[in-house]
Amino acid sequence: MDEPRSSQQRKGRFAYEGLDRVIHERARLSVLTSLVAHPRGLLFSDLKEFCRLTDGNLSRHLQVLQEARLVEISKGFEANRPLTRCRITVQGRRRYLEYLGVLEQVVRDAAGATKPEPGSRALRKLAPA
Amino acid sequence: MDEPRSSQQRKGRFAYEGLDRVIHERARLSVLTSLVAHPRGLLFSDLKEFCRLTDGNLSRHLQVLQEARLVEISKGFEANRPLTRCRITVQGRRRYLEYLGVLEQVVRDAAGATKPEPGSRALRKLAPA
Repeated sequence: MDEPRSSQQRKGRFAYEGLDRVIHERARLSVLTSLVAHPRGLLFSDLKEFCRLTDGNLSRHLQVLQEARLVEISKGFEANRPLTRCRITVQGRRRYLEYLGVLEQVVRDAAGATKPEPGSRALRKLAPA
Repeated sequence: MDEPRSSQQRKGRFAYEGLDRVIHERARLSVLTSLVAHPRGLLFSDLKEFCRLTDGNLSRHLQVLQEARLVEISKGFEANRPLTRCRITVQGRRRYLEYLGVLEQVVRDAAGATKPEPGSRALRKLAPA
């Protein structure tokens, strides 16, 4: 067993309470990262391709994100075809960046903790690109 | 709207299919990161403190992780008090490292995509520690 650290250091040390559940869910993290990478917005069809989601799944997750005011959705027409556009909101970007800070902490904690044999595959995986 | 990239580049570009749902759930990510940082194992009570989880929640998530063979749990006694010890398995460590590789990709994608004003708080957040 590992030596326990002081109680002060331990309390919630790995709790990661900033991992906002609205953002952390895999499909929504995928949608938000696509939209952060395309700040001027994406068509529903492009977003679907980037995230490899079905129409139904993407719609459901977009609704959750819209209700949380993290994305905005506009519907229009182009050459008589309906077009749905999705954009990340200012608030969405801010909350995504806060979430990202916690995610980086997880990566740092894990990288600091895992010390595989020199030259092993896991070590190369953890080395900065 | 942003320019669409080539179809080849777009398909599943932000899908992050390697974000294993067993590991990605916040409480379980918290438990596994604690155990990766303490490879010789942790007592239930210490793990509870690190992850700031209730007894019931920690038990429930440990059961999921044990069924997936990512952690092993042993029950014993010390000075007549029951002691539960938790350890990450070899398989658990390997799968955690694979998951971590995908998490690092999310961080790289997001950091590459977000270019806030120089000197802003968000930029400092994204800068390497």
